[in-house]
Amino acid sequence: MNVDYALLTDLYQITMAQGYWDAGKTDEEACFTMYFRDYPFKGGYAVACGMAQLADMVEQFRFTEEDIAYLAGLDAPGGGRLFSGDFLSYLADLRLTVDIDAVPEGTIVFPHEPIVRVTGPILQCQLIETALLNMVNFQTLIATKAARVCRAAKGRPVAEFGLRRAQGLGGVWASRAAVVGGCASTSDVLAGRLFDIPVSGTHAHSWVMSFDDELEAFRAYAQAFPNNCVLLVDTYDVERGIENAITVGLEMRERGERLAGIRIDSGDLSWLSKMARRMLDAAGLSDCGIVLSNDLDEYTIQSMLDEGACVTSFGVGTKLASAYDQPTLGGVYKLAAVRSRAGAPWEMRLKISESAAKLTTPGVLDVRRYYHADGRVAGDMVFDVNVEPDAREVIVDPMDDLRQKNLAGLRFETLLEPLARGGAVVLAPRFRNAMAARTRAVAGLDTLDETQLRMLNPHTYPVGLELGLNDRRRALVAELRGIV
Amino acid sequence: MNVDYALLTDLYQITMAQGYWDAGKTDEEACFTMYFRDYPFKGGYAVACGMAQLADMVEQFRFTEEDIAYLAGLDAPGGGRLFSGDFLSYLADLRLTVDIDAVPEGTIVFPHEPIVRVTGPILQCQLIETALLNMVNFQTLIATKAARVCRAAKGRPVAEFGLRRAQGLGGVWASRAAVVGGCASTSDVLAGRLFDIPVSGTHAHSWVMSFDDELEAFRAYAQAFPNNCVLLVDTYDVERGIENAITVGLEMRERGERLAGIRIDSGDLSWLSKMARRMLDAAGLSDCGIVLSNDLDEYTIQSMLDEGACVTSFGVGTKLASAYDQPTLGGVYKLAAVRSRAGAPWEMRLKISESAAKLTTPGVLDVRRYYHADGRVAGDMVFDVNVEPDAREVIVDPMDDLRQKNLAGLRFETLLEPLARGGAVVLAPRFRNAMAARTRAVAGLDTLDETQLRMLNPHTYPVGLELGLNDRRRALVAELRGIV
Repeated sequence: MNVDYALLTDLYQITMAQGYWDAGKTDEEACFTMYFRDYPFKGGYAVACGMAQLADMVEQFRFTEEDIAYLAGLDAPGGGRLFSGDFLSYLADLRLTVDIDAVPEGTIVFPHEPIVRVTGPILQCQLIETALLNMVNFQTLIATKAARVCRAAKGRPVAEFGLRRAQGLGGVWASRAAVVGGCASTSDVLAGRLFDIPVSGTHAHSWVMSFDDELEAFRAYAQAFPNNCVLLVDTYDVERGIENAITVGLEMRERGERLAGIRIDSGDLSWLSKMARRMLDAAGLSDCGIVLSNDLDEYTIQSMLDEGACVTSFGVGTKLASAYDQPTLGGVYKLAAVRSRAGAPWEMRLKISESAAKLTTPGVLDVRRYYHADGRVAGDMVFDVNVEPDAREVIVDPMDDLRQKNLAGLRFETLLEPLARGGAVVLAPRFRNAMAARTRAVAGLDTLDETQLRMLNPHTYPVGLELGLNDRRRALVAELRGIV
Repeated sequence: MNVDYALLTDLYQITMAQGYWDAGKTDEEACFTMYFRDYPFKGGYAVACGMAQLADMVEQFRFTEEDIAYLAGLDAPGGGRLFSGDFLSYLADLRLTVDIDAVPEGTIVFPHEPIVRVTGPILQCQLIETALLNMVNFQTLIATKAARVCRAAKGRPVAEFGLRRAQGLGGVWASRAAVVGGCASTSDVLAGRLFDIPVSGTHAHSWVMSFDDELEAFRAYAQAFPNNCVLLVDTYDVERGIENAITVGLEMRERGERLAGIRIDSGDLSWLSKMARRMLDAAGLSDCGIVLSNDLDEYTIQSMLDEGACVTSFGVGTKLASAYDQPTLGGVYKLAAVRSRAGAPWEMRLKISESAAKLTTPGVLDVRRYYHADGRVAGDMVFDVNVEPDAREVIVDPMDDLRQKNLAGLRFETLLEPLARGGAVVLAPRFRNAMAARTRAVAGLDTLDETQLRMLNPHTYPVGLELGLNDRRRALVAELRGIV
């Protein structure tokens, strides 16, 4: 999809850009860190997503003639035009030259650690802020929700089909993020085509209603799709619907075909699934699956499985595609360092605030993830790439100095990967591929402890600042509090 | 934005299309009704939106060669290809021929009444279902949320700036819907360009942090934008920030310019706004406005105004752009009638269910809105356009037969307007224009009673079925319950 990414931004990014330009700060460089502060869904982890679209944006970013003409026509509230012709000429010629580093999609991530880092002219860093946050916030949210839903399903495939209730075109990327988080397929055909992810689907109630009776409708569907036949049995009466499906299933078997499954989309799904299983088995259709759907999420799925629902796979829509119980992630993009020009030394920057949670972390940051010998994660260290980490390998909780953890001697890997250099995308194809990201997410979840994976009150994973970084941050806070 | 609307659908719409095609039902026509069942946000009304994008979809709908190639490559779960070559040739040549009727954007709408009606070949009606629901559900939700927020602001302008927290690209249409619902402007530049709606914005914390001190940052911004200067005063310390803004405001006055306002984005906004007002007034800057923002919604705005916050305008982001407290509307698209071909008589169709709320209403439906002599709304009658309404003009609550209301003698208007005829968009330009829709929404809200507008436990507006329609629906339920 062609998106005018240069205008997919808040107006203040462009007014600030003119301000920087006016103030002669076009060479001034900045480093911004994108991170979130709170675990989504009160869970114990998040699954990073959105970086493939971010790479698309970097490739497509450019102010078109139409964009410039539009901006030139904007009036300032106090009279006159908002933007100057000289600045707009500068924008028309602007090509991104920023460096971007990001965790690969599917990486398990936690609060208070950098997910994306953008370095380059401050003017450019700001222009892409809004779109970057929009993509990474939303897609990380949905991938995380999908991971929770799929874990609750305990290995049963989950099909995502929430496009009709998704928040507009965002739904297309929600479908992709759902697959990254673990869904087996999506109903969203456009997402299937754009992102090369599996699509699935059979028929709706309206199919049944368009025929004079249900049995006729089922027969016609089996006729058209002997190789993709899942019959929706709850248009009129579930028990009668299952009987009709059994009739058709036995007819299919006669023809050497197979009724793949039935779907129940209303009523008490757990109770009905047990009845359906008994009826199907009694008819000799033990190989016929049962698909359940209707406003499901991780909690309803867990509850149904706990009481022994007979289910082969799930369809999940509204609650997943909209992240119903928490529809935004709240990730932020904060200035962490500045320098007068490329190559000059970085000066750290910090936004102080009354609450410790909103204090930013200064520096050009990356993350080391430490692992126990058995492959389980031990803790994440946020560090400044331009400063040698303290040899003690101790991390300090950014919210509470007294909470520290020693990671010395453990194996670690570094999380951020180059996504763009000098404005050109350098992300390896395996980092843009949704199915590869899905594999990464599944593997990443396996490195967590059960206590971090549980839905209710999970164990908080240790993420902390490298000792030296923590000292520099404290010193900077003291200095700023002294000044103001 | 070019969107591949033909694939913006659930796979089952295309498998059903092949099913209809296989079953020789390509001429068979259907009438679908789109409506929602519950008031969003526990409020007393909704503001319809999404019809302009729906018109875009009708204009752009077409399976491209790439789409057909993609579909041709899909495997069926049971082996072989999912779609047949002959059917795909049919799809490649398919052009929409449906009729669509919809309420104009900005119309005040209520549960259980048609918002959109689609008539034409059932195969086409189904292909556009998912995209139609996606657009109208989401944009109606956001326009409604915006109307609630703007009413709480009691005439003060509200700027929408939630793009960074919106659910992906849906945010662009969320910005438009926010303006339709009453917002004065959006920060979203792409929405401004695409939909010709006002944009606004000044600077962020990062602007201040990129300078060595706040006063210098404020001076530079005032220099660059003497005609659009709202200074954000809470990067380090609000009181000191206001002092610095006052310094710059007085310097601007010396130069014959004006500091338009200050913005406070953290802390206790109500308390800080009063302090700011006192400080600004004492400095002689009574004409300097105060903008408040930080996770606001209709409830926080109402609370602040109740305690006398000094505020000129509001900025509202996350909670509006994501409809945080209820992120989906839940509108449905239900088969209401079928006929063997164009021109044949309609047969009514109904989906029965255990719950009265999920029972559909059969027929080719429209809505009459009745008005009292003073211009206030009296009630809405859902009726079948092909049957003369009962002369008594009584409406019956679709959820409870005993609740009836007599609307005889009152003036009425009919709500649905033609959007497409024979697949061609006929929607008048005034129905595609966001600012005209905004005017319509404001005027529509003025026809509601205060008791319907209040946030908490509003009065339920009477929407009912025309007497004859109610009788036909009851008869059909009895017939279906008898059959199954």
